[in-house]
Amino acid sequence: MSRSEALDLFTRTRARTDALTAPLSPEDTMLQSMEDASPAKWHLAHTTWFFEEFILKPRLPDYASPDDRFAFLFNSYYTQAGPRHARDRRGLVSRPGGAAVRAYRSFVEDSLAGLLARPRDDADEIAALVELGCHHEMQHQELLVTDLLHGLSFNPLLPVYREPEPLPVTSEVPLAYRRLEGGLVEIGHAGDGFAYDCEGPRHKVYLAPYEIAERPVTNREWIAFMEDGGYDDARHWLMEGLAVAKREEWSHPLYWWQQDDEWWTYTLRGPQPVALDAPVVHVSYYEADAFARWAGARLPTEAEHEVAFRDTPIGGNLMGDGDDIGMLRPMPGAGIWGDVWEWTASDFAPYPGFRPPEGALGEYNGKFMVNQRVLRGGSCATPAEQLRSTYRTFFYPHQRWQMMGLRLARDVG
Amino acid sequence: MSRSEALDLFTRTRARTDALTAPLSPEDTMLQSMEDASPAKWHLAHTTWFFEEFILKPRLPDYASPDDRFAFLFNSYYTQAGPRHARDRRGLVSRPGGAAVRAYRSFVEDSLAGLLARPRDDADEIAALVELGCHHEMQHQELLVTDLLHGLSFNPLLPVYREPEPLPVTSEVPLAYRRLEGGLVEIGHAGDGFAYDCEGPRHKVYLAPYEIAERPVTNREWIAFMEDGGYDDARHWLMEGLAVAKREEWSHPLYWWQQDDEWWTYTLRGPQPVALDAPVVHVSYYEADAFARWAGARLPTEAEHEVAFRDTPIGGNLMGDGDDIGMLRPMPGAGIWGDVWEWTASDFAPYPGFRPPEGALGEYNGKFMVNQRVLRGGSCATPAEQLRSTYRTFFYPHQRWQMMGLRLARDVG
Amino acid sequence: MSRSEALDLFTRTRARTDALTAPLSPEDTMLQSMEDASPAKWHLAHTTWFFEEFILKPRLPDYASPDDRFAFLFNSYYTQAGPRHARDRRGLVSRPGGAAVRAYRSFVEDSLAGLLARPRDDADEIAALVELGCHHEMQHQELLVTDLLHGLSFNPLLPVYREPEPLPVTSEVPLAYRRLEGGLVEIGHAGDGFAYDCEGPRHKVYLAPYEIAERPVTNREWIAFMEDGGYDDARHWLMEGLAVAKREEWSHPLYWWQQDDEWWTYTLRGPQPVALDAPVVHVSYYEADAFARWAGARLPTEAEHEVAFRDTPIGGNLMGDGDDIGMLRPMPGAGIWGDVWEWTASDFAPYPGFRPPEGALGEYNGKFMVNQRVLRGGSCATPAEQLRSTYRTFFYPHQRWQMMGLRLARDVG
Amino acid sequence: MSRSEALDLFTRTRARTDALTAPLSPEDTMLQSMEDASPAKWHLAHTTWFFEEFILKPRLPDYASPDDRFAFLFNSYYTQAGPRHARDRRGLVSRPGGAAVRAYRSFVEDSLAGLLARPRDDADEIAALVELGCHHEMQHQELLVTDLLHGLSFNPLLPVYREPEPLPVTSEVPLAYRRLEGGLVEIGHAGDGFAYDCEGPRHKVYLAPYEIAERPVTNREWIAFMEDGGYDDARHWLMEGLAVAKREEWSHPLYWWQQDDEWWTYTLRGPQPVALDAPVVHVSYYEADAFARWAGARLPTEAEHEVAFRDTPIGGNLMGDGDDIGMLRPMPGAGIWGDVWEWTASDFAPYPGFRPPEGALGEYNGKFMVNQRVLRGGSCATPAEQLRSTYRTFFYPHQRWQMMGLRLARDVG
Repeated sequence: MSRSEALDLFTRTRARTDALTAPLSPEDTMLQSMEDASPAKWHLAHTTWFFEEFILKPRLPDYASPDDRFAFLFNSYYTQAGPRHARDRRGLVSRPGGAAVRAYRSFVEDSLAGLLARPRDDADEIAALVELGCHHEMQHQELLVTDLLHGLSFNPLLPVYREPEPLPVTSEVPLAYRRLEGGLVEIGHAGDGFAYDCEGPRHKVYLAPYEIAERPVTNREWIAFMEDGGYDDARHWLMEGLAVAKREEWSHPLYWWQQDDEWWTYTLRGPQPVALDAPVVHVSYYEADAFARWAGARLPTEAEHEVAFRDTPIGGNLMGDGDDIGMLRPMPGAGIWGDVWEWTASDFAPYPGFRPPEGALGEYNGKFMVNQRVLRGGSCATPAEQLRSTYRTFFYPHQRWQMMGLRLARDVG
Repeated sequence: MSRSEALDLFTRTRARTDALTAPLSPEDTMLQSMEDASPAKWHLAHTTWFFEEFILKPRLPDYASPDDRFAFLFNSYYTQAGPRHARDRRGLVSRPGGAAVRAYRSFVEDSLAGLLARPRDDADEIAALVELGCHHEMQHQELLVTDLLHGLSFNPLLPVYREPEPLPVTSEVPLAYRRLEGGLVEIGHAGDGFAYDCEGPRHKVYLAPYEIAERPVTNREWIAFMEDGGYDDARHWLMEGLAVAKREEWSHPLYWWQQDDEWWTYTLRGPQPVALDAPVVHVSYYEADAFARWAGARLPTEAEHEVAFRDTPIGGNLMGDGDDIGMLRPMPGAGIWGDVWEWTASDFAPYPGFRPPEGALGEYNGKFMVNQRVLRGGSCATPAEQLRSTYRTFFYPHQRWQMMGLRLARDVG
Repeated sequence: MSRSEALDLFTRTRARTDALTAPLSPEDTMLQSMEDASPAKWHLAHTTWFFEEFILKPRLPDYASPDDRFAFLFNSYYTQAGPRHARDRRGLVSRPGGAAVRAYRSFVEDSLAGLLARPRDDADEIAALVELGCHHEMQHQELLVTDLLHGLSFNPLLPVYREPEPLPVTSEVPLAYRRLEGGLVEIGHAGDGFAYDCEGPRHKVYLAPYEIAERPVTNREWIAFMEDGGYDDARHWLMEGLAVAKREEWSHPLYWWQQDDEWWTYTLRGPQPVALDAPVVHVSYYEADAFARWAGARLPTEAEHEVAFRDTPIGGNLMGDGDDIGMLRPMPGAGIWGDVWEWTASDFAPYPGFRPPEGALGEYNGKFMVNQRVLRGGSCATPAEQLRSTYRTFFYPHQRWQMMGLRLARDVG
Repeated sequence: MSRSEALDLFTRTRARTDALTAPLSPEDTMLQSMEDASPAKWHLAHTTWFFEEFILKPRLPDYASPDDRFAFLFNSYYTQAGPRHARDRRGLVSRPGGAAVRAYRSFVEDSLAGLLARPRDDADEIAALVELGCHHEMQHQELLVTDLLHGLSFNPLLPVYREPEPLPVTSEVPLAYRRLEGGLVEIGHAGDGFAYDCEGPRHKVYLAPYEIAERPVTNREWIAFMEDGGYDDARHWLMEGLAVAKREEWSHPLYWWQQDDEWWTYTLRGPQPVALDAPVVHVSYYEADAFARWAGARLPTEAEHEVAFRDTPIGGNLMGDGDDIGMLRPMPGAGIWGDVWEWTASDFAPYPGFRPPEGALGEYNGKFMVNQRVLRGGSCATPAEQLRSTYRTFFYPHQRWQMMGLRLARDVG
């Protein structure tokens, strides 16, 4: 990536964050509804700190931060970048306020634009770090959106973040499976484009023949599972999943409720009837796994998923730029992927030969490699340029607040 | 209280709330650092709801609230006034925002002024309810200040709410005891002035002779307790208190830390050195009780306190009106009270013959009468007109975030 | 108390403990179902340690304990008697086993008998300490019985500790109130008989006129409360009580369940139908307080209770000696007390002028004086000689596993 | 397996359980120190119930259990075998007592011997189920031993289960790695011998070349990690692991303490100095993973482990029969395995094509396949005949009470 490409990506990415937060009041930007979620104001500042900490400070000897204490407040989890504020108390940081955070953003943007404007020996490294920082910010755009949804969902007034539009009329898409022969295949990132460290090294994996569904599981199918007593039938469930489901009193996806015999869901566009032929979303791994067993199928592994979809263009209505940011309106179609994150059966583990980079950036993914599950796909809250078929996102099996759904697979023979 | 007196009190009280919140940013008004504390925005709205719910709605048949849902959001704990929002989620209500809450305040203020402007048969009842509502709002002014201090204390930047001023130079005030003969005395409210239901009925109590200190315990004395190992010596402590102190790792009052051999404390005027001859503040009942035992004394009962100070004018630097709001600068002096809330040895219990009023307002104090301790006194965060010698405030023995200190007493003979 | 009286009391008390534990298997003696309850084996050893620690060790210079480590294992909460084992892990002490604990008991019994057999200058002090140790053991007899009931109640087989006998046929006893004039009265222990430190000093209290019920509340009345929705009606409840009741899902007294439209209860004599005219038992303070408010009455203070019953002989079927130990069969009657512990409205607080003894025995009662409520009365699990009208037992308001019931009182005029 | 072979295995297995529990007092058999651990008495009964539930009841129409309620008490987690007692309350089941449980064992043993004695059409199926039941009981023998160690470890007297013997003098065994070429290999059970369902199907896996250590990590090496600050250096740790380590205050393996500059450990043979050249044991996955990273290595995957050791006889001092049961004295040697369970980097997941059996026995392993890690190896508390190179045991990454250690591996090139 050239300096000008980097600057262009940077400008575009930062503008999208601004657009996403424009409708928020100062009070909205303070919401932290659980430790897993962060306030929008924190996302705005943390993504800025990332550029400052990993590019400006090491590369500009005279760089002076607007406030040295921001490094403590807005470092997320990089122990090698110094001590940091408690994650579950981000919602208690009323100061710096919104204006100060936006000034911080501008200052860092100007500094980085200045850095990119001048030829330097390390220009390639800088461009690569800017690219990483932009992808990092895109990840936080998605989190910002899902954290905001979670935060607003506790407000009994059910606030509207973006005005609703009529959903397109859809009809039931039959469930079809595609057969793949497997064998000794290669997965993982290789080549020139951007990828996170954990997407490589590219490596061989042996797969038995399998079948994979051409579309994600829909709300219609999920309701059939619910109506068949799926949430209460221990035979479908992992023991741990059942324990969580009982303790949390789960009987439907997150944000759903029933009203006059119809299912409704809370979205950033306010309360909406559940669209029957949209992908089901906001279900945990435990629920996804139980559904698959109920359906006589299983979840695919991440290798099966990657092999099946690496030649399929990312479909769906991914988040675009400008006015057209379409979120929370997943919709189905055959052969598609990218409308919803799909739980896989795979533990988030290092690929053979994986070695994280030296220093704090080595903490980006590596230290999360236990107890989390890989999801493949994308969602209508994901910037389109962030996705590729090797992308691995990961969450704990009990988590539901991301745009999590599933796709079925099954053994052959 | 006449209609015009009621309106005057109302106007004054509402203005003080406005003045207290004027320095706050919208983000500041969102802070909720624990279930016991509420966001400033919630205090602004709840005190308004109180007038609406208990005066406007029952007395103005045509009254229409700006938003019917506010009754759910801003009812605190009155079960007979209908369902209400979860107390520990008040910090997640970003909407209505600050402007909407201020509009709500104005609307209710105008409606109430209109109601008070017209002669009515029930004018006396209305004036009495307005007086109650104003005292209720004064209680919330104090909570607003202490909740804000607690909320801001989690910010590593140690924000300043009000610019600090130099503290007056003081010198050590010797500890003197005054002897009282006790006998069959009467305590509790009687007469015309305002009082809460729990301050009556006035009733007889028999007191043995006792001595009571002429001033509260100071920071200087508290540091001596700390340096004598007071926090670790089980002999001084109630068993339950010691367990809490160990679990919470208490070794000094809340908000203190040591820096270069000096004790500092966080206040709404930012970090301050601990003033040695100011009353100690932000200690729990457990700590106060242990201190008293260490000092060879005990805490007074609430009856002993009331009898001792009912003829002493409230001193100290109570919160005044306008620019002069002096808070968090308690200072000592002989024979004074009102600078700090003083834990008493008394359980918060109904006085003999106590009967709460019918209806939701009967929940004001009565349903809290278990496991809480009475404090007498006042504090520099307490509006002066709120206090009187019969005033009983009450908190749980582990709580420290109010302006809680202590005064010693001892048996005679 | 003379040496021979002390020895006689000691022998009788120890024999009763032996009789109470005789039906228990070694496994039964290990049960610890919550931190508040202790295994029977621990009670056997702790009551022995008490005599060893406070009499034998200080008074017999050559005394050597069978095992020095028992002082650590079997000290309950006396910090001044040295460090001690964690209270919530008493059920994990499988060794020393039953035989070793009984050998420990015998050894201490022989040593104490030897000490009492010889004339000494400090014979009076020793006799007084033996008397205290016996009363201490009687308290543990009651705890042993109630802890055992709690421990066995978790066994789905509903074990029988003692064979049931037919309950006497009783009929409904009408609720009558007795009026007392109050005034300036004296309460608390005075005179020669045994009493705990917290029962004195005798002191004056002023009481307004009041009425008190001639018998405790019955199961019949409690069922009426339940059937009237008492557990769900917030108007009757202290706020904290209602929160506990919701969290613990209380809808009836502890150990009750409904079967074929009849209420049953688990007892040490196995499952039994609830006897309608027996005193209700195993209810918390919160429930008792709510019941009283529902009934248009209140709980008496401990002073009101003491004044009302100090001239009434203890009635009921208290635990006797030998074969006749009648437990868990409370039954009503007019003017009686002593069949059930009765929650009072009084906080467990020091009487005016209370000063605990020096040293570890000063921890016996004094350090519990916060957040607990006084109960007056007794129960069919209480040794008769342990009781007197000044006796104050105390528990936390949420506790139910003791034999806790209530009696109503009300104001006059 | 023939009927007589099955009977022989059954007799031998049952006798070993008897031998293991012979030194226990009735009180010892009650210990339950955490939800993960069960009382010895429960293990005795549950292993018996397994034979009753899955063999006697379905195959002997006239079979009558000595007590029908035992099915509720002693079912562990098989939802399809009916409701069951709460796992965390097994320590509260004092009845049935030891004699009754032994009678239950005898009754079932006699019934099963009778069943095996007669020729039947379904004799092969019965023999296979008996074999499964015996292996199930062997697993419980190991749990019984480790649960007992955990339970006794809370006793300040540090009880001795088996008299200690002098440890053999050993010297440091240098750490050597063996190189394996990997490639497309097959792992998993195939053939005639016994294996659990989760050990199959045998399937292809592609492995990159790797090196694996010839022996487990020793205590000597672990102490070097400790002394190098390994427990405090965030760079070595998974984020979740570090959080657990901080919360649990881990600074050494479970059961260790320091005394006069020497490390000691509690074992079933009482306190013992840590043997420097024995395998480290009682470390969690998080610790093992951090150690490997500190050592510049990694943990092997389960496939790497299986391929490396499938042609190596199980060594070490595995638990034998009769008097020679050698436990808790692991010792090292080159090229050995089977002295300690070794954490692998592999998530416990179904092998491709895995399908659990129909009915309750399908719950044996399948429903645990989330968030657990596979361990390979064995331990000196594992019956020798239970082990084979395809054996997969699994535990949560925070667990330490099993005999868990580790072995290093590393990438090639």
